[in-house]
Amino acid sequence: MINFDYQNGTRLVFGKGVETGIGELTKEYGTKVLLHYGSGSIKKYGLYDTIIASLNEAGVSFVELGGVIANPSLELVQEGIKRCKEEGVDLILAVGGGSVIDSAKAIALGVYYDGDVWDFFVNGVTPKKALPVGTVLTIPAAGSESSIATVVTNYEQKLKRGFRHNLIRPVFAVMNPEITYTLPAHQTAVGAIDMIGHVIERYFTNTPHVELTDRLCESVMRTVIDHAPVVLDDPTNYASRAEIMLAGALAHNGWLGVGREEDWASHIMEYEITQVSGIAHAHGLAILYPAWMRYVYKQDVDRFARFAQVLFDIPEEDDKETMALAGIDALEAFYHALGITTRLSQVGIDESQIEAMADSCTNGGTRILGNFVKLTRDDVIAIYRSAL
Amino acid sequence: MINFDYQNGTRLVFGKGVETGIGELTKEYGTKVLLHYGSGSIKKYGLYDTIIASLNEAGVSFVELGGVIANPSLELVQEGIKRCKEEGVDLILAVGGGSVIDSAKAIALGVYYDGDVWDFFVNGVTPKKALPVGTVLTIPAAGSESSIATVVTNYEQKLKRGFRHNLIRPVFAVMNPEITYTLPAHQTAVGAIDMIGHVIERYFTNTPHVELTDRLCESVMRTVIDHAPVVLDDPTNYASRAEIMLAGALAHNGWLGVGREEDWASHIMEYEITQVSGIAHAHGLAILYPAWMRYVYKQDVDRFARFAQVLFDIPEEDDKETMALAGIDALEAFYHALGITTRLSQVGIDESQIEAMADSCTNGGTRILGNFVKLTRDDVIAIYRSAL
Repeated sequence: MINFDYQNGTRLVFGKGVETGIGELTKEYGTKVLLHYGSGSIKKYGLYDTIIASLNEAGVSFVELGGVIANPSLELVQEGIKRCKEEGVDLILAVGGGSVIDSAKAIALGVYYDGDVWDFFVNGVTPKKALPVGTVLTIPAAGSESSIATVVTNYEQKLKRGFRHNLIRPVFAVMNPEITYTLPAHQTAVGAIDMIGHVIERYFTNTPHVELTDRLCESVMRTVIDHAPVVLDDPTNYASRAEIMLAGALAHNGWLGVGREEDWASHIMEYEITQVSGIAHAHGLAILYPAWMRYVYKQDVDRFARFAQVLFDIPEEDDKETMALAGIDALEAFYHALGITTRLSQVGIDESQIEAMADSCTNGGTRILGNFVKLTRDDVIAIYRSAL
Repeated sequence: MINFDYQNGTRLVFGKGVETGIGELTKEYGTKVLLHYGSGSIKKYGLYDTIIASLNEAGVSFVELGGVIANPSLELVQEGIKRCKEEGVDLILAVGGGSVIDSAKAIALGVYYDGDVWDFFVNGVTPKKALPVGTVLTIPAAGSESSIATVVTNYEQKLKRGFRHNLIRPVFAVMNPEITYTLPAHQTAVGAIDMIGHVIERYFTNTPHVELTDRLCESVMRTVIDHAPVVLDDPTNYASRAEIMLAGALAHNGWLGVGREEDWASHIMEYEITQVSGIAHAHGLAILYPAWMRYVYKQDVDRFARFAQVLFDIPEEDDKETMALAGIDALEAFYHALGITTRLSQVGIDESQIEAMADSCTNGGTRILGNFVKLTRDDVIAIYRSAL
């Protein structure tokens, strides 16, 4: 176990009907709110009305900024910053999934910063202060509701970049599994894949003696693997929706990575897939993980064999390599069972695009990706190619 | 899963040598510190000197209050409150184990309260404000370093009582597993038992559909069961000391209980054992859990069978009751293997004391204990008696 400094103060208000108390909850943290949301799906099922009514009843004033898109844009973030400054906003309330929350976090960063907020993402600027962000989670997936991370896309420069800082960890997350009943099956599926991805990035490590966190990682992954098929079949199954929603928060709140060197190469490689094809981030992960795993498993065959056994009930045998490969096959089969394809060629990417993608994510070959196995530009090309 | 509202903002600064940075860390949270500790064992191995040097170097001023005893006294708490008020202390730094941290939390409660701090423990008073508490953990056991609980003893009235509130959750916990190398074997053993006890109280629940938290509970308990014997045999085994120290924090920081009805009957029954015999709290738990489990296991034989299989590798078989009982036997054998006895008669308690103990913890039979199985005074007597 390596040394760590970990804090997660996000308050989780979880369960049936909890969104009806959003006004009183919000009042504990702010007086003037930027209500931030996406394309308006929150209006379709009544959530928007519930929130407005609760804010009004509690006497919380607010301004609205909707229109966040998947892979949230720097442009809207900049508009949000302007609005917050003009209106004297002291809390951003993000109602949505990871994109809305990430957008809110980026706005929160920019309000107390004089330069362009994009500086945080590309110029190594460190924030001194940020607006608090509260959330009402509608899509369990990104874990952004209690994470320190935000990912924003600069569409002008065609760059998708992330930033991590404790100052933008949300102060609260309102999580009602019932709200997720109406999610399209595809979003439920990629949400589950996203959660498992957050754990995979922490699970595959060279740090020795991390047994407790290994077990925690396995607990979260196994729970998602068991319950995702249930809710696809039975979307209003509260018990399974709740397991998934809670697992999603734990997958990415940082606990599972304490004392461990994390990887994250696949996430960086994935950004290129989204950029080129427009598919959901986690769909890209479903394409990459089997390819990445088959490329790196020899680094720690025993760990991959254990992954196979604990998550997919692959029987123990002397030949750990067979177990390891069976586990990777089982993961890919799990993605298929959720209705998600696992090949680049199936999302419109072919050989001709691979070198440019590898150049982009390795900065022309100057950047090494990951820690479990350090990947060069050539490795990245080989992995992309094997995923065609 | 039941609804919950959970927040844990304790910052964990964990690993080799982290206590050397205590001065700079403390400075982030306060300017005038009450340095609170126990009998002076922190002076024996240099920790006290390290902390003083670091505080001085960082320019943090402090006053000292040592002398906390196991089962910390209300009297010293009251003295601490007086000192904090007189000296204008704005942060309590607790250096020690659960007793010192609990004492610090109780002081923190009292500083902003005009009445007697004991009111919180017996008169249902709710705090509005408390001093922040930071900790340097020396005994992994109670989990007090990131919990909301404090337990204090009023020796004049012979009452040991607990209080729980989010305001007294420590702001930081400095945790270096190396500091635990010099713990006496007995303290290491009861520390491990204490941790497992915190999980047992959450694991045995009637709340359905709590699969993720079931797995988390099992992860923590199994880790402690695997590593406690290792460190008893090899006290300077960093890897295992680290697993145990981290498990101890997670066991009682509240995460394992989210969405679950918890029990806590055995803890309340245990306080009487400590009161009468003077043994360590967790030694009392080692006496009670096997007795309590054999009394209640029929409430959920399948859960006890799973406990047996996951924690003690009891082979799966059709007869779940046999598995359940084998698991309880294995838990008792585990306590013995740690050098801890599991019978009341071995700690000087006999039949003649049982009725008075049951009267005390059930308020003369008017208080029902626990949730997994609701225990009356008669049940409590039966459990104590079976543990003789």
